[in-house]
Amino acid sequence: MPITDLINFDDVLEKIRIELSQGNWDEVTSLLESLRRSDQAEVFSDLPPDQQQEILPLLAPENSADILEELEDEDVFEIANRLETDRLIEIVDQMEPDEAADLLGDIPSDQAEEVLSQIDEADEVRSLLIHADETAGGVMTSLDVRIQQDMSVDEAIWHLRNLSPESETIYYLFVEDQNDHLVGVVSLRDLVVASPGTLIHEIMDESPISVRVGADQEEAARLMQRYDLLALPVVNEQQQLVGMITYDDLLDVLEDEATEDIYRLGGIPKEQPADVRLSSAMKTRLPWLILNLVTALISATVLSIFEDTIAQVAVLAAFFPIVAGVSGSAATQTLTVTVRGLALGDIAPKEGLKTLGRELLLGLVNGLSIGAIVAVIAFIWKGTPLLGLVVGIATLLDMICAGLAGVLVPLMMQKLNFDPALASPILVTTTTDTLGYFFYLALATVMIASLV
Amino acid sequence: MPITDLINFDDVLEKIRIELSQGNWDEVTSLLESLRRSDQAEVFSDLPPDQQQEILPLLAPENSADILEELEDEDVFEIANRLETDRLIEIVDQMEPDEAADLLGDIPSDQAEEVLSQIDEADEVRSLLIHADETAGGVMTSLDVRIQQDMSVDEAIWHLRNLSPESETIYYLFVEDQNDHLVGVVSLRDLVVASPGTLIHEIMDESPISVRVGADQEEAARLMQRYDLLALPVVNEQQQLVGMITYDDLLDVLEDEATEDIYRLGGIPKEQPADVRLSSAMKTRLPWLILNLVTALISATVLSIFEDTIAQVAVLAAFFPIVAGVSGSAATQTLTVTVRGLALGDIAPKEGLKTLGRELLLGLVNGLSIGAIVAVIAFIWKGTPLLGLVVGIATLLDMICAGLAGVLVPLMMQKLNFDPALASPILVTTTTDTLGYFFYLALATVMIASLV
Repeated sequence: MPITDLINFDDVLEKIRIELSQGNWDEVTSLLESLRRSDQAEVFSDLPPDQQQEILPLLAPENSADILEELEDEDVFEIANRLETDRLIEIVDQMEPDEAADLLGDIPSDQAEEVLSQIDEADEVRSLLIHADETAGGVMTSLDVRIQQDMSVDEAIWHLRNLSPESETIYYLFVEDQNDHLVGVVSLRDLVVASPGTLIHEIMDESPISVRVGADQEEAARLMQRYDLLALPVVNEQQQLVGMITYDDLLDVLEDEATEDIYRLGGIPKEQPADVRLSSAMKTRLPWLILNLVTALISATVLSIFEDTIAQVAVLAAFFPIVAGVSGSAATQTLTVTVRGLALGDIAPKEGLKTLGRELLLGLVNGLSIGAIVAVIAFIWKGTPLLGLVVGIATLLDMICAGLAGVLVPLMMQKLNFDPALASPILVTTTTDTLGYFFYLALATVMIASLV
Repeated sequence: MPITDLINFDDVLEKIRIELSQGNWDEVTSLLESLRRSDQAEVFSDLPPDQQQEILPLLAPENSADILEELEDEDVFEIANRLETDRLIEIVDQMEPDEAADLLGDIPSDQAEEVLSQIDEADEVRSLLIHADETAGGVMTSLDVRIQQDMSVDEAIWHLRNLSPESETIYYLFVEDQNDHLVGVVSLRDLVVASPGTLIHEIMDESPISVRVGADQEEAARLMQRYDLLALPVVNEQQQLVGMITYDDLLDVLEDEATEDIYRLGGIPKEQPADVRLSSAMKTRLPWLILNLVTALISATVLSIFEDTIAQVAVLAAFFPIVAGVSGSAATQTLTVTVRGLALGDIAPKEGLKTLGRELLLGLVNGLSIGAIVAVIAFIWKGTPLLGLVVGIATLLDMICAGLAGVLVPLMMQKLNFDPALASPILVTTTTDTLGYFFYLALATVMIASLV
């Protein structure tokens, strides 16, 4: 079910449009502010840019901040660009430090510097800005609450009431020693359930799972998922606590990684929103198609080599889509299982041989079935038993190679520290295409005397 | 980074194997029980079945329950099958109600009935068992804590301490009226931060997001993701509270849905673990390959119709992989963007026309570029300008069709209430293959006099 059906956007949008056209600014802002924060962003992003620009200054800065936190990076960039810097400072001041850092990382650096120089949490935001986007440091937020191990449960709760931190950062409390080293974690649940006089070190988990600030964001996400964590402490090389990753960021990371894999397997090297500008879409997709074209030339060369055979037995051409196509599909199946298995950790690198054995065997078994069916079809259709044999054997051989290529290519990419999803589809289908044509036409050439 | 590197399994496994071979059962169990619960399950699932069977009875029932909760359904089923029913009862008694229901739903119904008749939370588990696996009811768990709106914050916290519920079910407290209707939600954060005398109805959110018990699990997951919820209340038709979905289940649902899409786009209609039995893998993949074979026959027919043309101008065959292949890749790109856009809600159904326009235009622009390159290559390689023209025009036309098919097929599948990821790849590539061969050979046939 599409998200947009979940609340009645059309109604609200329509009402907002009517009020906008009549210049009822108060109505517009109160309609918008009556919605939940994710819905505000959704409605807002559906408005044309000039109306967005009219509305944003009318909203309270905290509502503007909420909306900007929920929007896509690209939209935020454009809106921030159009805002006056004073207004932007007011809004950024209301944002979570990690979201503020994301925004400031995307706008021109002199504007970012000006904003930074005038917001309250400048130090926190600045310390988040230094980390690369796709690392644990790049997705972490700063810590609102730090507690010590000799506090009592009572004191810790009183401390929390005083600080009244944002909800997403409160569910795990990280415990530090005097030198800021991470020494434990207490969940809010454990804190509430414990009797008031208990000391923190009596109830804390003394070996909390943590992640290094420079680790890949996917590693952090997998840790949180594996251990069902709501928040993951981020530490530096000295094991000092520098931030935390919260569950909402985890969801985004997991979804982004899944989308990235889906895009790459589909031949689009870089993820883009569905409504990206045409020129950006072209820039991402065209080079990939040209690469496809270059690899297709390899198959074309094989076909060209056997031109004489084709000229003599033109009926051979009818089976090109079958020999190469079905093996290509089998290779894509194997590739898909391998790439997803590697991404989810179901296939460990050392299990590569086991996977290879499986898929080879599967290629053989499926190849025998498909090869036999193809042979029968060719025989019945064209009336030549030998043609059936040639088509069938070529398909069988190519199916076995499909199993091989579908496993070996992504494993090799991983070994070379590339994303297995990235160039694998193109390499794998080129292999099955080229080998399919080769097996088929080489066999046909050998038996040409009996085929003409 | 693969999960298995995150802790040193090999060491622990090796130690466990040594102790096992020496019959040191105490050592084995204490080694295993010293690990975190997800790691216990990981180590356990790597052991051979006979050793699993030896170890399981030695573990405390709560540890066995933890391990079974973390394992794949298929493994759980086999282990439960081998356990004595008395032992199974002890273990199920220690499981979360939702996990217990999952397990009992997978084993033979007479065994399940026997277990159900002897566990403590039989009613809760029974009420969870009636819901279909992929619905909100199928993934929800029962509520440990229910509070009323006239309770004070103090009373609620005292109530929590008494019940000491599992951590994953405590972060949101759902508020009911006398007739079990859901009337509000309070987060544990709000409870802790509020001053002790405050009444629940003063701090509760009075319009909590909820989901119907029969709704698709993906709808529930999208709601939780959209509104950053740690738990989602599940209600029946009368708006009465019947359970809750917790964030750990949300993660599983989102990952499953992404994996399902990746598998289906890769031509595997049903998700399977990487180490599924060969016969199951064959049963899932072979029918799909046969379907591919059948659709490849359509292209084969087109090629067969133009056999005479191919016999006269065999050089035409060299460009088959280029004309059909590059358009196929372009179609896969468009399909990928459309399917993922629909899944994430980035493309609303009513925006179908907009997407179609975009992709058509992209097909035209990329088609002009690729067509021109192909034409030049054909001219240089074979020395015939007219051949270049034919190849180029056929590619351009097929690229435009690729854009059309890549959008229309998944939109149509969605309209017919099928998963857009399911049969789309096969339909889309069949279309570009067939049309590519047709455009190319029809053009060549028309101009045959100038080509020979």
